[in-house]
Amino acid sequence: MRLSKLFTKTRKDAPTGETAKNAELLLRAGFIFKEMAGVYSFLPLGLRVIKKIEGIIRDEMDRAGGLEMQTSVLQNKEIWEKSNRWSDEVVDNWFKSKLKTGGDVGLSFTNEEAYSNILKQYISSYKDLPVYPYDFKHIFRNEVRSKSGILRGREFYWKALYSFSKNDAEHQEFYERMKASYQSIFNRVGIGHLTYMTFASGGSFSKFSHEFQAITDAGEDTIYLDEKSGIAVNKEVYTDEVLNELRLDKESLVEKTAIEVGNIFSLGTKFSDPFDLTYQDENGTQQPVIMGSYGIGLGRLMGAVVELLSDDKGMVWPEAITPFKYHLVALGEQHAKADTLYDELVASGAEVLYDDRPDKAAGEKFADADLIGCPVRLTMGSKTPDGMVEYKLRSEKESRLVPGSELSALLKS
Amino acid sequence: MRLSKLFTKTRKDAPTGETAKNAELLLRAGFIFKEMAGVYSFLPLGLRVIKKIEGIIRDEMDRAGGLEMQTSVLQNKEIWEKSNRWSDEVVDNWFKSKLKTGGDVGLSFTNEEAYSNILKQYISSYKDLPVYPYDFKHIFRNEVRSKSGILRGREFYWKALYSFSKNDAEHQEFYERMKASYQSIFNRVGIGHLTYMTFASGGSFSKFSHEFQAITDAGEDTIYLDEKSGIAVNKEVYTDEVLNELRLDKESLVEKTAIEVGNIFSLGTKFSDPFDLTYQDENGTQQPVIMGSYGIGLGRLMGAVVELLSDDKGMVWPEAITPFKYHLVALGEQHAKADTLYDELVASGAEVLYDDRPDKAAGEKFADADLIGCPVRLTMGSKTPDGMVEYKLRSEKESRLVPGSELSALLKS
Repeated sequence: MRLSKLFTKTRKDAPTGETAKNAELLLRAGFIFKEMAGVYSFLPLGLRVIKKIEGIIRDEMDRAGGLEMQTSVLQNKEIWEKSNRWSDEVVDNWFKSKLKTGGDVGLSFTNEEAYSNILKQYISSYKDLPVYPYDFKHIFRNEVRSKSGILRGREFYWKALYSFSKNDAEHQEFYERMKASYQSIFNRVGIGHLTYMTFASGGSFSKFSHEFQAITDAGEDTIYLDEKSGIAVNKEVYTDEVLNELRLDKESLVEKTAIEVGNIFSLGTKFSDPFDLTYQDENGTQQPVIMGSYGIGLGRLMGAVVELLSDDKGMVWPEAITPFKYHLVALGEQHAKADTLYDELVASGAEVLYDDRPDKAAGEKFADADLIGCPVRLTMGSKTPDGMVEYKLRSEKESRLVPGSELSALLKS
Repeated sequence: MRLSKLFTKTRKDAPTGETAKNAELLLRAGFIFKEMAGVYSFLPLGLRVIKKIEGIIRDEMDRAGGLEMQTSVLQNKEIWEKSNRWSDEVVDNWFKSKLKTGGDVGLSFTNEEAYSNILKQYISSYKDLPVYPYDFKHIFRNEVRSKSGILRGREFYWKALYSFSKNDAEHQEFYERMKASYQSIFNRVGIGHLTYMTFASGGSFSKFSHEFQAITDAGEDTIYLDEKSGIAVNKEVYTDEVLNELRLDKESLVEKTAIEVGNIFSLGTKFSDPFDLTYQDENGTQQPVIMGSYGIGLGRLMGAVVELLSDDKGMVWPEAITPFKYHLVALGEQHAKADTLYDELVASGAEVLYDDRPDKAAGEKFADADLIGCPVRLTMGSKTPDGMVEYKLRSEKESRLVPGSELSALLKS
């Protein structure tokens, strides 16, 4: 894409009132637009990152046996009364509205009820299980605090998968599969080396749930990490009893601040009971369905990557989720040559952001490239010798000259 | 996909209270789930259709120069007060809610204000124009009447593109491009032969807007169609003056009922004025930006296809948007052979819905295949001679036997 065709622009100053680094950089680089506290629109560069994260998550969910669908945002009061989660006294972050025809509706803040209600229509026999539906969806939470940029939004885009299993053993097998899928997602997105599976509070049906915590000072959570084993414990379950059970030595644990980038829960029959979600087993006996939930906020994950991997010049995108792999800069009298290179790169299938703006100086163009953070910068300037291209990785300080003839081999590497 | 792994099931009876054919068939076939009047969740088969329609629309928008982004659902009251569309007395189908921190928010019922407000931050010079951002988004309209299934939802998924141009000539050039893009979308989706560009009321800035109307008795609109030229006029502008202007002969016009599957509008400065959306031209003079809007409801388009192309046995999906191209049916003792064919087809990249259920009779399997409506049914039954496959198009009555060796060539056709 030519920068001259992209309507967004970078800004030098941090917008006022935005204290979170993720939002500051994403706003300055033109990835997001702030509609109000905790509510952001995604501009073309930002949406490209979200779509790539979405593609990685979808791939992992499908491999694990997930079935994608899409539940509605508007939620029926009657459904939520079944599980006693309609009342504002029980759930304090509902957004609710009223139908013109009378009656209340809620905006999805989570999906257990919607899925339990839908699956109730289709599950009756052991032959119908297990099943693993999931969706990507906009979720709404009426947060009082929303000062963490896109880490904690009032509106955010997430993936949630729910597992419906015949018994604990079948549930546990899938739960272990999801642990591996989640670790794979964070590896592929590019923050696996900084993300730790963390034991957290499990609620009424399981001693523990598992969070995936990415280490950064910008996090809202405190965890205790055993760096040797890579196992961590959330502060909320950091007791001698738990440490003994997990065979962790208090002395070797390090306190870290972290962002929860994913979580997986065993739900037991917490939702299948109120929805009477049962099946007939091989012997003709009615049995309750065992559920689990597996969530990831895509905007939060994007924000976490910014917090973890940026430097003082801007963002540093991992290749798998960068908006563009190449940031091509044309300088001085070299626009015609850069045009040719751009056309060749695009024809070869490469994703290129091309700074073809005729009226910007080298310093400004390089600063924009650093802020936007594509992995590879290619420059054609007046100092670039004929037949050469200046090649620089965003993660390195020095550039080097590459003969045009070697470029295609280099780009494939 | 194996039917035994798909949790949805077909139903023989129409659900009570659902009078629209589109919703009746989609509910019976397990494509959608009704949450409340006008609110549907999309089950795996339904979402596959939506995603294919989305892919076609995205391709056409990108070819026309569109830039995809994603605006938030939650809308800031102050923005809508600028254009005087916040008040319920002006706009009667808002869903509104309240922030816990105080203040009102609305749920997007359209996108002109959101885009005008965002573009205001980025447009200042003639060099910044034209620009054509668009998004796919869930839209909310608090409808009193919602009895048309997925044709008129309280929550629906749409594409909206907004054009921002320097002047009327530039606007008009893009507007014509969008006419062609829209016709191409309806052709590719498979209803181009039944869809007519229709002159409709233009509002304050243009004499006409243009609708794309698909002919079916299930429609809510009345149009007058000149079958020779393919030009139609919406009832709302069906006057002698308009007919004269369009050189249409009243005698040759046929009254038709139709569904509006797309519309394009010239907005002039209706929104750029209140948002003070201007640019500095080449001579240093401030000029207003000229806007246009271009919408398509994806669920409505899917519903229109069902209304137009189904028969008394079920749906008949066009190849471009069918959930699966092949519906493979295994009968009697032929499951092992059908398994092999399924694996071969999937390995070749074909999209196959495989009815591998061991406990269903031929009649029920064929009825389900007709209801779900994939274009090609392949059957391996006890009556199928060795080495042969029974091949039947959904749109034809008769099946024929095809040697396995000829199948791959046939499938490519």
